[in-house]
Amino acid sequence: MSRSDAAPHQGRMACVQQGLRERGFAAAVFGLTSNLRYLTGFVDEPGERALLLILPSRGEATMVVPKLYADEVQLHRPAASIHVWQDGDDPMEIVREVAEGLTSLEGGVLLDDTLWASFVLPIQRAFDGRSFESASKVVGAVRIRKAPEEIAAMKRAGEIADRALEEALEDPIVGATESELARRLESAMLDGGAGGIGFETLVASGPNGALPHYRAGSRRIEPGDVVILDYGCRVDGYCSDMTRSVVCGEPTETVMRAYDTVQKAYWAAREAVTPGVEAEKIDAAARAVFETAGIGRNFLHRTGHGIGLDVHEPPYIVQGNQELLQTGMAFSIEPGAYFAGEFGIRLEDVVIVGEGGAVPMTEAPRNLRRVK
Amino acid sequence: MSRSDAAPHQGRMACVQQGLRERGFAAAVFGLTSNLRYLTGFVDEPGERALLLILPSRGEATMVVPKLYADEVQLHRPAASIHVWQDGDDPMEIVREVAEGLTSLEGGVLLDDTLWASFVLPIQRAFDGRSFESASKVVGAVRIRKAPEEIAAMKRAGEIADRALEEALEDPIVGATESELARRLESAMLDGGAGGIGFETLVASGPNGALPHYRAGSRRIEPGDVVILDYGCRVDGYCSDMTRSVVCGEPTETVMRAYDTVQKAYWAAREAVTPGVEAEKIDAAARAVFETAGIGRNFLHRTGHGIGLDVHEPPYIVQGNQELLQTGMAFSIEPGAYFAGEFGIRLEDVVIVGEGGAVPMTEAPRNLRRVK
Repeated sequence: MSRSDAAPHQGRMACVQQGLRERGFAAAVFGLTSNLRYLTGFVDEPGERALLLILPSRGEATMVVPKLYADEVQLHRPAASIHVWQDGDDPMEIVREVAEGLTSLEGGVLLDDTLWASFVLPIQRAFDGRSFESASKVVGAVRIRKAPEEIAAMKRAGEIADRALEEALEDPIVGATESELARRLESAMLDGGAGGIGFETLVASGPNGALPHYRAGSRRIEPGDVVILDYGCRVDGYCSDMTRSVVCGEPTETVMRAYDTVQKAYWAAREAVTPGVEAEKIDAAARAVFETAGIGRNFLHRTGHGIGLDVHEPPYIVQGNQELLQTGMAFSIEPGAYFAGEFGIRLEDVVIVGEGGAVPMTEAPRNLRRVK
Repeated sequence: MSRSDAAPHQGRMACVQQGLRERGFAAAVFGLTSNLRYLTGFVDEPGERALLLILPSRGEATMVVPKLYADEVQLHRPAASIHVWQDGDDPMEIVREVAEGLTSLEGGVLLDDTLWASFVLPIQRAFDGRSFESASKVVGAVRIRKAPEEIAAMKRAGEIADRALEEALEDPIVGATESELARRLESAMLDGGAGGIGFETLVASGPNGALPHYRAGSRRIEPGDVVILDYGCRVDGYCSDMTRSVVCGEPTETVMRAYDTVQKAYWAAREAVTPGVEAEKIDAAARAVFETAGIGRNFLHRTGHGIGLDVHEPPYIVQGNQELLQTGMAFSIEPGAYFAGEFGIRLEDVVIVGEGGAVPMTEAPRNLRRVK
């Protein structure tokens, strides 16, 4: 996002303020998170210095900014009054003053979902007597439907990830360590124009593939291994996230059967996507395929997660989530089967909900791929 | 850290429990953070799934673990009773049960400093009626003095960063973009044996150097530029963090004068380090050099930050911090001078407090270096 487009950010702040009024909240407080990026365009890694946006339901927003960041925050021209503090000052003094100025506004205060406890506790003291809830209650509803420019960024991030797979598999992977293969993927994405890596690249080979949250280690890939590649990149802050499972040489009968089930579950879930259906129905569609195949217990996790500026954000595609899908929502479909001590298989694309169903952001072939 | 050394982690948990008792707290709750790594050896990126360690002042610890992570958490054999929950369950039910089981313990509850608000709020409801404070009050005191194995990891991370500088400067940097130079440093560190990058590498050239928190962008480095390189890597989770400022060609008189001041401030701070001195005295020593040189206003930030499993952790080397330095403390010394629209200069090493003064973790030459 360029530094000159203050207007969309102002529009977003106004949407959140409207949501605060509609749901009876006095204010929301954001930290150095994806919500702040969404609302102001400013982004950095979270740190111990308080950088906060206090957005009341009515009136002007306030930003509390460490001196070190002041010039860069100003470049984004946020629609907020900026209060700068220096190392050695107590930034919570500013928060207390702002909180006192908001006493005429009734209702609780929303706290940014990923705001650190070290900020939450003094903010709660500054807003003494208020109740507190997660900001996702209001901001989630604004962010959950992606605008065309957001979808365009996600599609570019997907195209870069698709190409990276081809580059990473050009040379043999047998003999390489998982970490080396992860770096191939990451270099290909950065060379391909990504603004950054989306999340720690996951390369899980052989038995490591059965640990669904294993990352990438020093294990060397062997002939016969099934290898899970789960990775993504960022364009303008928006993430891609895809998984392909490849086999080094010829797959065993067991692997082929499991792959077939995962692929069928993927398509069952993807074809269930349509505006107006409950999120949990997508999960149920995938799960039913595993149950029919008799490996329901080997699908250890939910079918997917929303994605955008965060790699994981609402809507979650999980049993119990009866939220209705709407056009513009973006989430992963990623069924997997895990066999402890043996191997794992997962297949994942991010899709956008369109009028006619799911529109995938990544397109790499989804059949079982034999590699060297 | 290998997966078999459960013992040091158990010893650390016992230290924290003792701290809880001494300071009158009932329990501490940790999330997927560096504190959890310190106490159990388990590490991953924080996410929306609750993975918590509830450590009471007396008795057995409880871990609340998503099914997806269960096998990996078990590999670390944490000294805790493990309660697994699945996607679709409410993990806070487990927290409520544990909280009810702790009613006999008096005192408030400590919350992990970087625990997300989305976890803090339901945990506060589960421990209804308790007061809450930052866990750093107790854990910080345990983590702040590094053990020999921690210092050894930091030293290795420093050596890798030192070598990466030489590799990155072997080829000319004029004509490269800041991002390209950042990737050179990162590749050199990963090839050199780092377990990962410590933080987003900062390469700020020419006028970008005057923005102390600028990262690395598409600007091409030009002849005459001063370029700030601020980067680090991880070994066993422990970070290095160093900054060197180089000049492409011959420096101007202004640059030489500024560099000289920064270097003198660095040495003044470093020579002030000794056990028993207040942390703020180190900051004052650096600041005095800038004041004498008439550029006190150009030193925009504190002199340093503690470092270990977190890139920034206590002790902070800042005005107002009267904490006494003790042997084994680790922090950066990083004075800098920033000239808006022109250039910036910063010089940084991490040091450990030894009996005889500061022991640096990085050793790359500290004189003004001319590069191509």
